[in-house]
Amino acid sequence: MNTFGKKFKFTSFGESHGVAIGCVIDGMPSGIKIDQDELQSFVDKRKPGLNSYATARSESDKVQILSGIFESYTTGTPIAAVVYNENQKSKDYENIKDIFRPAHADFTYFHKYGIRDYRGGGRSSARETLARVIAAGFANFILQNLNINVQSGVYSIGNVISENANFDLAQNSEIYALDKEDEFKNEVLKAKKDHNSVGGSVLIRAKGLPIGLGEPLYYKFDALLADALMGINGVKAVEIGDGISVSKYLGTENNDLMDKSGFLSNHSGGILGGISNGDELLVKLHFKPTPSIFKEQQTLDLNNKEKICTLRGRHDPCIAIRGSIVAKSMVILSIADLLLLNLSSKFENIQQIYKKLN
Amino acid sequence: MNTFGKKFKFTSFGESHGVAIGCVIDGMPSGIKIDQDELQSFVDKRKPGLNSYATARSESDKVQILSGIFESYTTGTPIAAVVYNENQKSKDYENIKDIFRPAHADFTYFHKYGIRDYRGGGRSSARETLARVIAAGFANFILQNLNINVQSGVYSIGNVISENANFDLAQNSEIYALDKEDEFKNEVLKAKKDHNSVGGSVLIRAKGLPIGLGEPLYYKFDALLADALMGINGVKAVEIGDGISVSKYLGTENNDLMDKSGFLSNHSGGILGGISNGDELLVKLHFKPTPSIFKEQQTLDLNNKEKICTLRGRHDPCIAIRGSIVAKSMVILSIADLLLLNLSSKFENIQQIYKKLN
Amino acid sequence: MNTFGKKFKFTSFGESHGVAIGCVIDGMPSGIKIDQDELQSFVDKRKPGLNSYATARSESDKVQILSGIFESYTTGTPIAAVVYNENQKSKDYENIKDIFRPAHADFTYFHKYGIRDYRGGGRSSARETLARVIAAGFANFILQNLNINVQSGVYSIGNVISENANFDLAQNSEIYALDKEDEFKNEVLKAKKDHNSVGGSVLIRAKGLPIGLGEPLYYKFDALLADALMGINGVKAVEIGDGISVSKYLGTENNDLMDKSGFLSNHSGGILGGISNGDELLVKLHFKPTPSIFKEQQTLDLNNKEKICTLRGRHDPCIAIRGSIVAKSMVILSIADLLLLNLSSKFENIQQIYKKLN
Amino acid sequence: MNTFGKKFKFTSFGESHGVAIGCVIDGMPSGIKIDQDELQSFVDKRKPGLNSYATARSESDKVQILSGIFESYTTGTPIAAVVYNENQKSKDYENIKDIFRPAHADFTYFHKYGIRDYRGGGRSSARETLARVIAAGFANFILQNLNINVQSGVYSIGNVISENANFDLAQNSEIYALDKEDEFKNEVLKAKKDHNSVGGSVLIRAKGLPIGLGEPLYYKFDALLADALMGINGVKAVEIGDGISVSKYLGTENNDLMDKSGFLSNHSGGILGGISNGDELLVKLHFKPTPSIFKEQQTLDLNNKEKICTLRGRHDPCIAIRGSIVAKSMVILSIADLLLLNLSSKFENIQQIYKKLN
Repeated sequence: MNTFGKKFKFTSFGESHGVAIGCVIDGMPSGIKIDQDELQSFVDKRKPGLNSYATARSESDKVQILSGIFESYTTGTPIAAVVYNENQKSKDYENIKDIFRPAHADFTYFHKYGIRDYRGGGRSSARETLARVIAAGFANFILQNLNINVQSGVYSIGNVISENANFDLAQNSEIYALDKEDEFKNEVLKAKKDHNSVGGSVLIRAKGLPIGLGEPLYYKFDALLADALMGINGVKAVEIGDGISVSKYLGTENNDLMDKSGFLSNHSGGILGGISNGDELLVKLHFKPTPSIFKEQQTLDLNNKEKICTLRGRHDPCIAIRGSIVAKSMVILSIADLLLLNLSSKFENIQQIYKKLN
Repeated sequence: MNTFGKKFKFTSFGESHGVAIGCVIDGMPSGIKIDQDELQSFVDKRKPGLNSYATARSESDKVQILSGIFESYTTGTPIAAVVYNENQKSKDYENIKDIFRPAHADFTYFHKYGIRDYRGGGRSSARETLARVIAAGFANFILQNLNINVQSGVYSIGNVISENANFDLAQNSEIYALDKEDEFKNEVLKAKKDHNSVGGSVLIRAKGLPIGLGEPLYYKFDALLADALMGINGVKAVEIGDGISVSKYLGTENNDLMDKSGFLSNHSGGILGGISNGDELLVKLHFKPTPSIFKEQQTLDLNNKEKICTLRGRHDPCIAIRGSIVAKSMVILSIADLLLLNLSSKFENIQQIYKKLN
Repeated sequence: MNTFGKKFKFTSFGESHGVAIGCVIDGMPSGIKIDQDELQSFVDKRKPGLNSYATARSESDKVQILSGIFESYTTGTPIAAVVYNENQKSKDYENIKDIFRPAHADFTYFHKYGIRDYRGGGRSSARETLARVIAAGFANFILQNLNINVQSGVYSIGNVISENANFDLAQNSEIYALDKEDEFKNEVLKAKKDHNSVGGSVLIRAKGLPIGLGEPLYYKFDALLADALMGINGVKAVEIGDGISVSKYLGTENNDLMDKSGFLSNHSGGILGGISNGDELLVKLHFKPTPSIFKEQQTLDLNNKEKICTLRGRHDPCIAIRGSIVAKSMVILSIADLLLLNLSSKFENIQQIYKKLN
Repeated sequence: MNTFGKKFKFTSFGESHGVAIGCVIDGMPSGIKIDQDELQSFVDKRKPGLNSYATARSESDKVQILSGIFESYTTGTPIAAVVYNENQKSKDYENIKDIFRPAHADFTYFHKYGIRDYRGGGRSSARETLARVIAAGFANFILQNLNINVQSGVYSIGNVISENANFDLAQNSEIYALDKEDEFKNEVLKAKKDHNSVGGSVLIRAKGLPIGLGEPLYYKFDALLADALMGINGVKAVEIGDGISVSKYLGTENNDLMDKSGFLSNHSGGILGGISNGDELLVKLHFKPTPSIFKEQQTLDLNNKEKICTLRGRHDPCIAIRGSIVAKSMVILSIADLLLLNLSSKFENIQQIYKKLN
């Protein structure tokens, strides 16, 4: 269950304080040129330790490719990529090895598996999302070659909410802010100074999608995105298009009408019946505040005894910031998978390919 | 892609105005007693034509079991169940066979497949959800035998929002209202009278879940629910626990602390790290207003010509109502799947089973 | 686990003496014309009761299509097809409901599931293969449109072995004999008269395959065929190309050399490295004799007591005969799946499809 | 398509002359003690360069574990393991980079993917089977803890065939011979001296299997084994139990009768209806001779021009020898998967597990 996707698939492995984090990508078509510097730049967007809004854990996160590329081109065979962990401080976690940190997965992993790697949360750490971003870095070469562009940014932090979502701004912001960068930063630092953390939301936009992505009825585009995004550490809500607002709408307010120029509005967020309609894809997701805070919290230990949890360690005060890169990555991976799956929808496409092959 | 689940799986088939709707369930354990009347009652909750808040299409929706049950017990072989369509009025759709109804899947199905069964939306019709409810009716026998109880109800319609979610009330309400039944009804009738439709939201609660459901990292409980629920026709947002609110929280507001009695709050909705924590599962989802409204709407036809769409036919004015039964069904199906998948998490469980077998 | 295939998938359901046998096909591309008479003819090749070399069970095996076809064309949605059982004689099985018939699945089903539908073997009956043949009937429309032709025939019965495999002869033979039809018939009747049964082997040939079918490393063409064919009731061996003989060869005897005209020999059976090489596919499989024989046999009952098993009922004296149709069907289904999976191997194919879509 | 298994799964990656070979195991239950020395010993059975009957390529094949183990126990998270390639001699392959080696996958990979890593066959090299053996080394800890024992040995080489299969002998034979070790060696050396290669067959036996392994109808035990074994490089036939002989049998010769002591014969090879019957599992497979021989062979180049192929490099003269370890590994992996899948067959098992959990 550590694999995402059906045709463009990746399998992730690794723990926060284990030897390495990595992934195996299966289903990458052959003949795509891979620029390793571009891949590394893509991955570096998620890198920890870059500024005071992120964890101080310092990792170079240098991607090593083990297979699947020959003379800079994909060969159709699995691509394995790995990052060795460098800056683990496992000692930080000695004091919590017997207790369950509130709002963390410690409690559930222990009860599900009867054993847990407590160092930095082990497998449940957000460090695993590095594997997702690496995989997306590869997937993005497919999208780029088809002129599909996925962007993301931080839409809100705490009670500060964007008024205009500016994806170009986000690209150049050190906290990936779509708007109100200074207010966002202030919100983060305020929480951090108070040994607290703060939640935030992320908006994602994809342009250039063909009509037809999404495999109804149980691999619809919106369902796949919901799966992909809700599965990111700390995400508690996913909205497509106008999202929760639609439950307050009348039909006349919600329906996107059309004329020759295309859709006259985009309440749907670019998806109808679980299939992309060619309009912009718009998805929003909501991150809870980082569970690790530096205040005394009431909890239990492995023997069901009441304890006070006092955390040390290095943590992002707001996971939505670097989470925006992970979210974008999951959308890229979802699109890559649907692009490949959709190839066989129409028989005329199949005839066209095999006429050429024969 | 018409299959849901990995170990308890169901595959659905059928179109709104085709011969039949049905499903095949694969992975049902053997030795479970199936009470057909109870199954039919479960399915009847979703039945159309019951009152003025639902479509007037009148279907008996009598479930016929074709396989998998022997002398009232499951045998471990696939269960096929089918409902023959009775009350199709395909003529209602003659006039829209060449145009794309706004906010429907007509446009995307046509472009994805190059052909579409326009009668009642064909495969994209919410009538397909009958197959999900049948499958859930079977799955629920697993849950019942393990004392797991899933309930749902309508949480809001338009701008009228529940203040107290009362699942017992919902059970006995003809619109499955968790609160404010009369105001909800009024909201629906107001929209209906105006040839319009209205959105709504649904809350689901599960009690009695064991700790440990959810297969990280890419089949987490919350991700699976998001997938399952966002895939229902008309759903545009899914929230786990406190949902979108968490993005405004500080860590101190969000973290659920524990003492010996268990969790002291339930902001998480019963899921930590993608795994059930034994507390109540709480999920909310948001339905858009029914796309079919009886007002003139601007659209295109198959030849990309501008047209005015004027609909006839029979439709639910608010899909959230019967949608609440479908949503509950998808949660039941998700839980059934995770129950089976979790069996092999710990090796000690495996040893216990095979010691008995040998 | 009742689904075969990854992209062109079918799920089968039904028991020998249950209500119906059927299948759901998922992944059928849209826009393929389905001729129902042709489909029925395909299925009728497997029909029981046709002559004295097959079981006397008389079934019309009329296929009813429940979904997925609109105005004679596939729509890309799941195709459900069903055959209602007509000629069950469940009473024939009353006397064996408490004992395990030798060489049947009675013993293993009972121990695996703790319950079994004893009537005609229930799910383990070869009657289930009807679902496979129906699914293959649909899949064959894909192959035909791509000029791929799969044929099968009986290669040996008992000790009588074909010298020249003539697929045209097999087409017109009532026992699908590739050679020596009379000797084959004689072998069958001899066994039948002696209340015994006899084994046989089947050869399959496919022409017109493109180079490139097979997804290494764990969905290779040969591995998929071995899976597909070994899974047929009563099959105990599968050979690709020269099969078991290759273990006696020297490299110089086995290697297929090439010149401009193509391969100079075909020891490989048309597969290299798990991928079709464009040459003829050749596969052979071996059926055991029908386990149901009308002689007294020593066995156990459900309570582990020793019993003498005396069978009644109607059975094929040689399952290889109708099995040749099932085997051909499984090869067709395997090829259909690989045709769809292979579409994304090269990125240039993907670019070609999406250029057209955009 | 580089993943094997459904519940105990492994994904392999790596090329013969790439950076590394490795695998990711997903589905390993938690709480199993892993002895790294024992794992390495298991893997070393397949190691090249050990004697004159194997390739001279010298690799230490030291397994590095990257994840999934904590303080010597499995944690339920994915286990990644990797072996870095050391002794590549890519120059050996410069001269064949533009031509297709007869009976190799060069031709099919090139046409399927449009590009190929020609160094040592790239992904199609038998060196990839190292990943399978590593994965099996882990899986075997499950089997051992359940007292299931899988053994393999070389049954025949060329025309020399075992008379008595002695698995203990095979354990201690440097060519894993079940019988006639000297004659087998002689057959290999004769071929090698003549710059030729020779085929061989392998027999596998598993003891201690519970009744009930195998998920009918499309993940039967025998079908899975056929898939697993036919997918090994160079295998052209798989036989279960008496295999191809059954097609010559009468029913009376094939049926395994029973008394209180169990089955009175084992023609079935331990599988009935695709499910293990508790008797010994017996499977045989046939390897073709190594395609790489040091004689001039007629072939084509990438531009379809006729060429003479003259190979250099280091190759096993008989792949059945080390192939016997790979085959055993695939059987172990198949059994591990079925053990986990079978857990949910009976509802009483599920009740037992969850009673304990709650």
